[in-house]
Amino acid sequence: MKSLKHGEHIVGMDIGGTKMMACVFDHKFKVVGRCKKKSTSGKDEKPEDRISRIIQEAIEDAGGAKISGIGVGVPGPTDPVAGIIMDTPNLGWKKFPLADVLTKKFDVPAVIDNDVNLGTYGEWRFGKVKDCKHVIGIFPGTGIGGGIIVNGALYHGISGAAGEVGHMTIQVDGPYCGCGKRGCLEGMASRLAIAADIAALAARGDAPYILKNCGTDLANIRSSAIAKAIDAGEKMVEGVVRKAAFYTGIATANLVNIFSPEAIVLGGGLVEAMESLYMEEVTRALKIHTMPFPLKFVKVVPAKLGDDAVVMGAAHLIVERL
Amino acid sequence: MKSLKHGEHIVGMDIGGTKMMACVFDHKFKVVGRCKKKSTSGKDEKPEDRISRIIQEAIEDAGGAKISGIGVGVPGPTDPVAGIIMDTPNLGWKKFPLADVLTKKFDVPAVIDNDVNLGTYGEWRFGKVKDCKHVIGIFPGTGIGGGIIVNGALYHGISGAAGEVGHMTIQVDGPYCGCGKRGCLEGMASRLAIAADIAALAARGDAPYILKNCGTDLANIRSSAIAKAIDAGEKMVEGVVRKAAFYTGIATANLVNIFSPEAIVLGGGLVEAMESLYMEEVTRALKIHTMPFPLKFVKVVPAKLGDDAVVMGAAHLIVERL
Repeated sequence: MKSLKHGEHIVGMDIGGTKMMACVFDHKFKVVGRCKKKSTSGKDEKPEDRISRIIQEAIEDAGGAKISGIGVGVPGPTDPVAGIIMDTPNLGWKKFPLADVLTKKFDVPAVIDNDVNLGTYGEWRFGKVKDCKHVIGIFPGTGIGGGIIVNGALYHGISGAAGEVGHMTIQVDGPYCGCGKRGCLEGMASRLAIAADIAALAARGDAPYILKNCGTDLANIRSSAIAKAIDAGEKMVEGVVRKAAFYTGIATANLVNIFSPEAIVLGGGLVEAMESLYMEEVTRALKIHTMPFPLKFVKVVPAKLGDDAVVMGAAHLIVERL
Repeated sequence: MKSLKHGEHIVGMDIGGTKMMACVFDHKFKVVGRCKKKSTSGKDEKPEDRISRIIQEAIEDAGGAKISGIGVGVPGPTDPVAGIIMDTPNLGWKKFPLADVLTKKFDVPAVIDNDVNLGTYGEWRFGKVKDCKHVIGIFPGTGIGGGIIVNGALYHGISGAAGEVGHMTIQVDGPYCGCGKRGCLEGMASRLAIAADIAALAARGDAPYILKNCGTDLANIRSSAIAKAIDAGEKMVEGVVRKAAFYTGIATANLVNIFSPEAIVLGGGLVEAMESLYMEEVTRALKIHTMPFPLKFVKVVPAKLGDDAVVMGAAHLIVERL
């Protein structure tokens, strides 16, 4: 594991579809400056200009620290060697050379990678699966993303888009997913799939806490509210979450059967909000759906870095490249 | 790609649960000696003695050629570095050092690996997916096995048992599989699953060719007979096979979404017996169940080495190690 020299600083950034966050790290990977904003300003600002401005403000927040490099996580497939974003529909980029743009702007080396890959990488470097040889990260939230580490390095596949674990079909002719396919894990177990089931409970009067606090609009049925409804004793809401977590466990078992990894780390909004209940169902599914031999060799743990996983992974990636 | 010197010979062997085959290859990987026998003699012969005898007879069939090394494919997870078979219930081995045993017996280097891994490796080195960077092999037959090549090398996972693609759950609460789980690809699409559906058709009088030629015993409903029934116009039999091939295509799509490989090769008894029909359904499922981006980068092809894939992969593996 490479490290920074005393006094050196680097930037890790997480570009999401709704929010962007840049952090300045010191040589001990401690955050010394931070800037977080919505992904679009509403004004006529190019995404690359907004990204540069957020990095600049994080640097100012760190007292104008001189930086040695920039690592960035982006939502979509990348060519990490060339530093090119292949395709991010919600930011309007296609084959965009973000690493080059940032290098020119800040006059330091820059690297990019997919955000979920970097979340997995962050957990691998700083979390509970530190230095395991083969690791898979699964992040159930509004969507369900995945990252893969093979032989101690991020695995991208031939297209740069490997790790689409959310679009694994686990139910032939299952419900529709946002991707248009049927029976994907994401269509059956994402925050949106859960919210849809819970909204129906609320509409029928079977989830009064949800009805009172969120109504029946899926946009308002967030992971934190779902967790509170369960704490308030809403058993059907709990049943919906347990079912979705069990499905995620089936997909996790599939990945163990295929990859036989040393560790699987589960993060994202749903796991963070309801960790013990969620991990209980994943563990139950693993016992039923994993082959006994690879099951002996794998540990399955919750993520520990929360929202900082991507920026920490991004920061570490640029240190590896310096 | 390493090669043999002129005049050098090596042995490639395939140890199956029902049959064993050893081949002697010359420096151009041409078979110059062969011996194939049932896996058990019925007498009180240890498996390792039977294996040695089959290798010896293949060498005699090659005119007593002097050999430089032995590569062996075994049915079960291995530690390929230590040359140890971890667990093969049907041959009664647990942590058995087969590579060492063969080295002592024949006084040459020996390597072992899982048979499906070596089948994939053989297709990778000698078949249509030659030298692709990331390759997955899927072999639907009585069971459904898989092999994975990542960055140009066989991938074993932490346990040695990676590649259990047949035990990927594609249908929550689907039919029982031989492994005891429900909804595995193997439980829904193996030769046995197909034969069970077809036997029911025959019993009802809906598959007269099958009833006349195979009866309703699953053991007699082999891939070749199924292919003949389809040629004879039995539409329901064809429907059963198409459904199973489509399920294999869904699993193939899952693997493309997860790995984004450069190539997938499909082999085994079912594909060999009904290649065009089988590949047609796999291709149809891929179009429906694969994410568009990784789909652009992958080619999906039928295997071309047939029964020789494992021995050729095994032979090539020992050459790599010499």
